[in-house]
Amino acid sequence: MTETPAARVEPIPDPALNVKELRQHALGRLRAGAFGQEMWDYLEGGSGDERSLAWNEEAWAAMRLAPHCLMGVDGIDTTTEVLGQRLSTPIGLSPAASHRIWHPDGELGVVGAAGEAGALYVQSTLGTTSMEDVAAAATAPVWFQLYVRRDRELTASLARRAAASGYTALVVTVDTPVLGARDTDRRRSVRLPKGMTFANLPALTPRKEDDLPAHRRVYVERLDPTLTWKDITWLAGLTDLPVVVKGVMRPDDASRAVDHGAAAVWVSNHGARNLDTVVPTAVALPAVAAEVGGRVPVLVDSGIRRGTDVLKALCLGADAVFVGRPYLWGLAAAGREGALAAIHMLDTELRMAMGLCGARELSALTPDLIWR
Amino acid sequence: MTETPAARVEPIPDPALNVKELRQHALGRLRAGAFGQEMWDYLEGGSGDERSLAWNEEAWAAMRLAPHCLMGVDGIDTTTEVLGQRLSTPIGLSPAASHRIWHPDGELGVVGAAGEAGALYVQSTLGTTSMEDVAAAATAPVWFQLYVRRDRELTASLARRAAASGYTALVVTVDTPVLGARDTDRRRSVRLPKGMTFANLPALTPRKEDDLPAHRRVYVERLDPTLTWKDITWLAGLTDLPVVVKGVMRPDDASRAVDHGAAAVWVSNHGARNLDTVVPTAVALPAVAAEVGGRVPVLVDSGIRRGTDVLKALCLGADAVFVGRPYLWGLAAAGREGALAAIHMLDTELRMAMGLCGARELSALTPDLIWR
Amino acid sequence: MTETPAARVEPIPDPALNVKELRQHALGRLRAGAFGQEMWDYLEGGSGDERSLAWNEEAWAAMRLAPHCLMGVDGIDTTTEVLGQRLSTPIGLSPAASHRIWHPDGELGVVGAAGEAGALYVQSTLGTTSMEDVAAAATAPVWFQLYVRRDRELTASLARRAAASGYTALVVTVDTPVLGARDTDRRRSVRLPKGMTFANLPALTPRKEDDLPAHRRVYVERLDPTLTWKDITWLAGLTDLPVVVKGVMRPDDASRAVDHGAAAVWVSNHGARNLDTVVPTAVALPAVAAEVGGRVPVLVDSGIRRGTDVLKALCLGADAVFVGRPYLWGLAAAGREGALAAIHMLDTELRMAMGLCGARELSALTPDLIWR
Amino acid sequence: MTETPAARVEPIPDPALNVKELRQHALGRLRAGAFGQEMWDYLEGGSGDERSLAWNEEAWAAMRLAPHCLMGVDGIDTTTEVLGQRLSTPIGLSPAASHRIWHPDGELGVVGAAGEAGALYVQSTLGTTSMEDVAAAATAPVWFQLYVRRDRELTASLARRAAASGYTALVVTVDTPVLGARDTDRRRSVRLPKGMTFANLPALTPRKEDDLPAHRRVYVERLDPTLTWKDITWLAGLTDLPVVVKGVMRPDDASRAVDHGAAAVWVSNHGARNLDTVVPTAVALPAVAAEVGGRVPVLVDSGIRRGTDVLKALCLGADAVFVGRPYLWGLAAAGREGALAAIHMLDTELRMAMGLCGARELSALTPDLIWR
Repeated sequence: MTETPAARVEPIPDPALNVKELRQHALGRLRAGAFGQEMWDYLEGGSGDERSLAWNEEAWAAMRLAPHCLMGVDGIDTTTEVLGQRLSTPIGLSPAASHRIWHPDGELGVVGAAGEAGALYVQSTLGTTSMEDVAAAATAPVWFQLYVRRDRELTASLARRAAASGYTALVVTVDTPVLGARDTDRRRSVRLPKGMTFANLPALTPRKEDDLPAHRRVYVERLDPTLTWKDITWLAGLTDLPVVVKGVMRPDDASRAVDHGAAAVWVSNHGARNLDTVVPTAVALPAVAAEVGGRVPVLVDSGIRRGTDVLKALCLGADAVFVGRPYLWGLAAAGREGALAAIHMLDTELRMAMGLCGARELSALTPDLIWR
Repeated sequence: MTETPAARVEPIPDPALNVKELRQHALGRLRAGAFGQEMWDYLEGGSGDERSLAWNEEAWAAMRLAPHCLMGVDGIDTTTEVLGQRLSTPIGLSPAASHRIWHPDGELGVVGAAGEAGALYVQSTLGTTSMEDVAAAATAPVWFQLYVRRDRELTASLARRAAASGYTALVVTVDTPVLGARDTDRRRSVRLPKGMTFANLPALTPRKEDDLPAHRRVYVERLDPTLTWKDITWLAGLTDLPVVVKGVMRPDDASRAVDHGAAAVWVSNHGARNLDTVVPTAVALPAVAAEVGGRVPVLVDSGIRRGTDVLKALCLGADAVFVGRPYLWGLAAAGREGALAAIHMLDTELRMAMGLCGARELSALTPDLIWR
Repeated sequence: MTETPAARVEPIPDPALNVKELRQHALGRLRAGAFGQEMWDYLEGGSGDERSLAWNEEAWAAMRLAPHCLMGVDGIDTTTEVLGQRLSTPIGLSPAASHRIWHPDGELGVVGAAGEAGALYVQSTLGTTSMEDVAAAATAPVWFQLYVRRDRELTASLARRAAASGYTALVVTVDTPVLGARDTDRRRSVRLPKGMTFANLPALTPRKEDDLPAHRRVYVERLDPTLTWKDITWLAGLTDLPVVVKGVMRPDDASRAVDHGAAAVWVSNHGARNLDTVVPTAVALPAVAAEVGGRVPVLVDSGIRRGTDVLKALCLGADAVFVGRPYLWGLAAAGREGALAAIHMLDTELRMAMGLCGARELSALTPDLIWR
Repeated sequence: MTETPAARVEPIPDPALNVKELRQHALGRLRAGAFGQEMWDYLEGGSGDERSLAWNEEAWAAMRLAPHCLMGVDGIDTTTEVLGQRLSTPIGLSPAASHRIWHPDGELGVVGAAGEAGALYVQSTLGTTSMEDVAAAATAPVWFQLYVRRDRELTASLARRAAASGYTALVVTVDTPVLGARDTDRRRSVRLPKGMTFANLPALTPRKEDDLPAHRRVYVERLDPTLTWKDITWLAGLTDLPVVVKGVMRPDDASRAVDHGAAAVWVSNHGARNLDTVVPTAVALPAVAAEVGGRVPVLVDSGIRRGTDVLKALCLGADAVFVGRPYLWGLAAAGREGALAAIHMLDTELRMAMGLCGARELSALTPDLIWR
């Protein structure tokens, strides 16, 4: 990401300098009625007692940096390449459902912001804009995320549509075979506001289990509990797109992913939204990266809130670092420009941290910068 | 536990999804005068400065999970067998005194809930319903808990009544030879509300020590400080019932229990109600399980509040996992249906956690799922 | 300490069951004007930012117990012998200045309470009652505490008076060669209320340094910074009394104390009143006890608030365990009977903890009861 | 520092005894309008989420002391020598910008206080008094701090002026090649109040980057990102003054500094004002000191708030220990006399801590006094 003239950045409605300040702006729009409280709770919430939600942030923040001085850090360069695709910044946007909930700019606003920043964007299956329209608006690489569904033909058709419309990778989420104890969301069924639809999917018929009361429900139609490693191989054979396996938290599973054709391994605990007390990704990442040993790229998300978090993930073996809530806060605060500000803030903080650690390029980010 | 039609579950008075929410409902009934504040304090309280009370919950929650993905988890199965008895869930109900304090449904309501859920229920000697009536109402295995009393003939008669009425094990509590510093209860003698009696016991005459002021009292009639290991052997010989030793916190004592005829070892610190700063059971369990080495089943309770806690205990070597306050919260909130909801909530959370960890059956729960 | 009929204990003004509740009663008397706020601050305060004050309590409380069961614990016995002197309880009373500040019962009330409980009492040089009167009232062993002063003849005369009046040991405090950063007390000179005097000392003339402003004062007349190990030998030769060295925090110094004639080593950081961030005694004790290796008794104080704290100290090698603030809270709450209640509460809690840990006698308290 | 008659110390406006109480007085002057809130925020603030700001203080405070007793500590002596310069105390004053913001006494007040206390003062380039006037007022050694600027001739001229006017060392700050995420200051450009100027510098012309919005700015004119180790050698050759490299946080960089001609290494993270989550200096110091191995003096600052902190730094290998905010609090509270009080408070606390640890001279401060 190179510094571009200020004129291209629309000011967000008050000088915010970090993503937590964007969150404050988003709260202002919540209070103004731009979206419902249950939607905000859906965005913010984690599973169970939200311990992993706190651990995710805390684990990155608690790592202590051991900065080099006097290395010469003019022209800091955050460009990188992942799966052969050039990016201006190693900071990417995790898949998240239904952007139009937060702002009319929706998915098109976010993909536009990503494009302007040269950042990787991952489109969720559950978008409120059709995947084809999103891909058409992209000016930087975009990937398509999907769950393998019980209806494998539906899954296959999504994969083929992704390939046809210009996405450059498939991201399959593997950390959600059943429901998690996201109690706030379980209590009231979160539904799309009137006028919005899941643009990529046919209307679904609820299955038998849905008659169970919420406190007894484990399975739902949209999640396929039968998913196994062979499905990764099947998915990889469907199109020419590389398949990224998202939701791997163990070194042994990372190796298994590579063995079954994964083009990249994405360390994620789904933003602590599924399994509470799951280990934070900051702890899992170095173990996974060591096991993968460079065979495929390693990606990571969950709990990233500052450029120093991004830098630490890169030091510990990540090839790209993704954020979810931060860009959604930006989107909810100020639409496209808010999402762009979120990327710019994190990238600026990353570049500051690189400079202050004596690293001019991403290749200089090694484990040695983390105090042992 | 299999998913049964929702119709069989009476809704509790507002959508609660976890046992802490049941506790909130119970507090509502406290405020409505359904039972006294001193009774609530008795239910909630721990010993001393209540450090172990906090440690018990914290130690389970602080363990971090290392979930497997892509294992195929359709048809998650929580059935198990303990002491040859089939159970639909490894979650059992710890013995607790005087259920009718909390709700007119009392012990019969709880044993009914346990039966419907296929969960093991342990009846306390200090029930407000006769042990014979409870056993007659049971539709799943029930065990009988007793303290060995100074009056050994009374103890023996309780054991024989248990065997005669259909209980399938005796649970002898060994962690309470003297009073603990449960200061709230020591200050005001907790007494049964009018109209309730300890249905299994003759009226007791207070002994001499009871004349001491509360701040000097260590011994009471109902607890026998002379109890030793040979009493376990004696108790095991009284009936054909297997004897479970409850309150073992050390590996060496666990081995001693097996040597003296215990059919199972129950790791418990009595819900932190006796000895403050006792080590939490989550710490003691793996050491005890390693020492027992499969010779007899290992059970555990104290501090279990979520299905993830249950899963961790099973990973660390427990064969069944018991809860006390959670089902009493349910009982105090909504009688029989509240107790049933508590079991269902914990079992549902357990099954979610199994699914999200890639475990279809209890046998897949191994220490490897705890991040080292 | 044996249980005596309740009739001998005057009830304290409301049912208190632990020493923190006595503290609440003392606060009531503070609010009623029985003593000044600056006196209370003097009692409660620690040095600097009061980190060690918190660490002292926390370090005992944080140790986790590993209780034995089924050991037979009828007739729990806390009697012990220190320096050949029989005591009913290992809990003793640390030296503290000016008891009459807190209650007219003063030192005579406290020594009476100690005598009734069979507990060791250590009289401070800075008593508001003459050392001879205190000794005359004692019905259990009493020791005399002194600082070696610049005026060695004064010091020697105190030692000889102690021997003559029936004290059975001299306790020399070695942790205070200069002032500490007890900021509350430094700001306003704490003075005895009208009508009270330091009954054992001649009136003192302030020295030159006292003209320095409080924020520059390090030395004061009453503390002798020249004190060294040879002074211990000198003191030991003055009388036939054994000399206890109080304020040792390091294993190497403990050995040095023994080499210079100490009859016992007292691990103390002066209740965290001198050097903030000094290591807590719970951490120092096992290291000191290991180094002393039984050559002389090891004593400890600082941060003891519960019988479980006492038990832990005994497990880690202490021969007796002293408390300061707890009995002063009792004294400030209810005079002699309050001090007696404090001792009884701690001893009762100790006996409960012994029973719940399976220890009938103090000799059964070994490091093995602390979870490793 | 020897104790001087009290008459020479003007009382600060209320008895303050430690630097945090001086801070309270400074807050009183803030409320009275003596300086602006944005200036106070500038003084107090740290980078990012201010984790390192908290860690810096916490890391010193959390170290536990293992004091010696009975060592003889009359005439405690804190005199020392750094780079051949005699000092009354090892406590020095870190460079800080623009003293006149806080009090009209400004730099002349502070250098006067340092002189009276015999403490080392480091003048910042960004003084509001000319460096020559400050040097002329000094009665103890003064050093001059500078950043190497893009304009090397300006840098060289500052170095030569320092040598000519009597400074005895150059301190080059190397931890700030780019901006840090000091969000409060980034939001509103902190500007000098009317009537004050950076007395040592020509007016600067903002560069192109300054047109970027604050959330995208990484470089600024006053910081030179091209700085490398060879610039240290260049600077060392400019004058006869020894060059101190300030901002070294790693052992390997400390060795590099020595190799490139540094006369001393200063462990500093800039008071946590640049890189958040940088390791605290209390952790970095012993590693750096071990690597330097006595080749040059090691200095340290960041987070020092108590004399015990100073003592710990000296135990861990520091030759002198610097404070920033504490003397600025004193200055903001009461001008010259407030700054003097800050030095005296810390030195008095240091001497108390030495006495209570059994150390009469600085050479007795060894790692052995830190509990392992």
